[in-house]
Amino acid sequence: MFFKVKSSEEVFEILKGFPPVNDEPVFAGEAYNRILSRTVTSEEDMPDFSRSSVDGYAVIARDTFGASDTLPAFLELAGEVLMGKASKDTVTPGKAIRISTGGMIPEGADAVVMIEYCHSVDEKTIEISRSVAPLENIISRGDDYRKGSGLLEKGAVLRPQDIGLLAGQGIQNVHVYKRPKVGIISTGDEIIPIDQHPKPGQIRDINSYTLSAFCSQEGAIPLNMGLCKDSFDELRNGVVRALDQCDSVWISGGSSVGLRDMTLKVLESFQDAEILVHGIAIRPGKPTIIARIGSKSLFGLPGHVASAMVVAEIFLTPFLAWLSGEGRELKDNHFYLSAELERNIESAGGRDDYIRVKLTTRAGKLYAEPIYGKSGLISTMVEARGLVKIDRNTEGLYKGQTVRVMLFKPYKGDA
Amino acid sequence: MFFKVKSSEEVFEILKGFPPVNDEPVFAGEAYNRILSRTVTSEEDMPDFSRSSVDGYAVIARDTFGASDTLPAFLELAGEVLMGKASKDTVTPGKAIRISTGGMIPEGADAVVMIEYCHSVDEKTIEISRSVAPLENIISRGDDYRKGSGLLEKGAVLRPQDIGLLAGQGIQNVHVYKRPKVGIISTGDEIIPIDQHPKPGQIRDINSYTLSAFCSQEGAIPLNMGLCKDSFDELRNGVVRALDQCDSVWISGGSSVGLRDMTLKVLESFQDAEILVHGIAIRPGKPTIIARIGSKSLFGLPGHVASAMVVAEIFLTPFLAWLSGEGRELKDNHFYLSAELERNIESAGGRDDYIRVKLTTRAGKLYAEPIYGKSGLISTMVEARGLVKIDRNTEGLYKGQTVRVMLFKPYKGDA
Repeated sequence: MFFKVKSSEEVFEILKGFPPVNDEPVFAGEAYNRILSRTVTSEEDMPDFSRSSVDGYAVIARDTFGASDTLPAFLELAGEVLMGKASKDTVTPGKAIRISTGGMIPEGADAVVMIEYCHSVDEKTIEISRSVAPLENIISRGDDYRKGSGLLEKGAVLRPQDIGLLAGQGIQNVHVYKRPKVGIISTGDEIIPIDQHPKPGQIRDINSYTLSAFCSQEGAIPLNMGLCKDSFDELRNGVVRALDQCDSVWISGGSSVGLRDMTLKVLESFQDAEILVHGIAIRPGKPTIIARIGSKSLFGLPGHVASAMVVAEIFLTPFLAWLSGEGRELKDNHFYLSAELERNIESAGGRDDYIRVKLTTRAGKLYAEPIYGKSGLISTMVEARGLVKIDRNTEGLYKGQTVRVMLFKPYKGDA
Repeated sequence: MFFKVKSSEEVFEILKGFPPVNDEPVFAGEAYNRILSRTVTSEEDMPDFSRSSVDGYAVIARDTFGASDTLPAFLELAGEVLMGKASKDTVTPGKAIRISTGGMIPEGADAVVMIEYCHSVDEKTIEISRSVAPLENIISRGDDYRKGSGLLEKGAVLRPQDIGLLAGQGIQNVHVYKRPKVGIISTGDEIIPIDQHPKPGQIRDINSYTLSAFCSQEGAIPLNMGLCKDSFDELRNGVVRALDQCDSVWISGGSSVGLRDMTLKVLESFQDAEILVHGIAIRPGKPTIIARIGSKSLFGLPGHVASAMVVAEIFLTPFLAWLSGEGRELKDNHFYLSAELERNIESAGGRDDYIRVKLTTRAGKLYAEPIYGKSGLISTMVEARGLVKIDRNTEGLYKGQTVRVMLFKPYKGDA
């Protein structure tokens, strides 16, 4: 079976074929950073009654018209609004009722004079030195949201203020997309668990850990399916177990041609398997495999740690957002900063090159310095703050040129 | 006791007086997004042996010098390196050993020829059509990190690649700062739990939920200490309980003058209390109280939901990072985007104004539209994507002007 190496754009198109995960109800107070699977509508006017937005006196605005320091208005104190209670008293012409911030506007009143402009003359009389317009210092019923209006849309990532809105509406449970479960399998006869000391030729498992943390970073749930020797049966059993529990399966470590071929054979051995991608026109990351088994996605990631991570950044960041129900488009969702390139970078063309870069700030200006080093070196990723793309139609980038840097998370204010 | 309203800069200085939380050891595999409390040093050379970075043949580079398609070099096949094993065979002049990516370089070899340039002539002979330089296609022992060199610095937020590095070094446990615990108390006779239906004058508790989610967002652990009526004893008991369990205590909801005074009296009633801030020159958010009891910080936040959230964004985002041991400076750590302002905004001066803005993109250009509305309206925060600051020395901002927008999280690639 012959596969043409796919472009990034083709890969994005293919990934759109996978459906988002199912949803589940969760307690709103624990829904921070979850993604709504249904639009939420206002179940009541918010606020449900007119409230004062200041400390002061509820009045009829007309009674204060023309009031000033030199010619104050005098109103009769007719009671006090207790917090959390409806006022028993009514404001009639010439009267004022004491009210605190958040208090319920008493019947008859249409404005509140701030306490700064009120002065007690005696137990029964208030002197008012400033006029208020009708509705001044009042939050009217429904000012925040009217009953039946849309509050939060399907696909919204719930922020603290959104959680607060749900709480304020008494919406205790919301439907959100489940967090996608990703099964991670590390392959290779040379890979050992991190609690063992390597013998000559052995190295500890890095990819399981980077990819698991990457899943956590992107809001998915990683399930570490353990290490797998270079054995068809062992890998196939691992994939069967992972498919049983997960929405997506990521196989990493098979960087040798033999192991890549085996990964491909294992994937092809499933009855309803379809190999969608066998090679992507990017560097690093070319030897990437993408397959479909049923409705589930499987990725054969390059074994080199930096290659696997670049593929994850470029394709799996947006793909996990897509699986999570975030947004209607599957597209690059990284944050970018502009920086001046510190050195020339050549590129062979015909593929998108992703160059790891360090960022430094000098005299308030941001500079991007390419990090050279084989993609088997994790230090190149640890030193990097992000990636600079050299498009496949470009021969390179020049020192002094302004480039856009695709940032690694966490996005922090200081570069 | 008289308090001058403090500037933001003064508040930042004051907050630096609180020490970071203690640290704890955690399993490296679960340390994603945690902050290192100790610098981590390489415990061994990484990799611990020289490895091939390609599939091919381990050779003595000199044996390939001058090799080309028309004049290939012929080498004798002297064995194969098995993955995860040291080679039993040695490369001597005129010989080559088959090796896969990641395989251990056999003794005697100083380069690897990629399999693409090798051709099996017979069972014993390899034809090589390209020369390699010494060390070509080899990751040498210690190329990633030398034993004893610094890997990750104190204060580093652990990213997926950093977790991978720890795994690769066999560092199973790292010391990270504890996540700060924040006790959240919502006060006010009008506030009811979200599972109750409000009677006239009552509203559901919003601030506990926004502030709890805000803590989660910033990597802290919120402890919801429940609602508190406008009662000195009840609030004081709540503060005692919160101080017992938490690193910082946030009291919100006391937006009326009376309740603010009570919060102040409660804080002052502790033997070792010090009121550090009583009013900040910002809007919204002026009536903010900051106190110290022992080594713990206490905040009296404005009751208006948008005011409380703006104060949290401006001061508590960097403060939680500081408490968490992140970085040596306590300073604004938000991400900013530049946008063109869609309307004039006036400002009174003498205080920093923070204007909530929507962001829209038209023809590839980002626009910021001010959201007007009282700070008691949560809708103003739900619609907003961030804040635009009007400095206290500025009278306002103009339509068409480029402004920096302090973004709310989550930071997403699309504005």
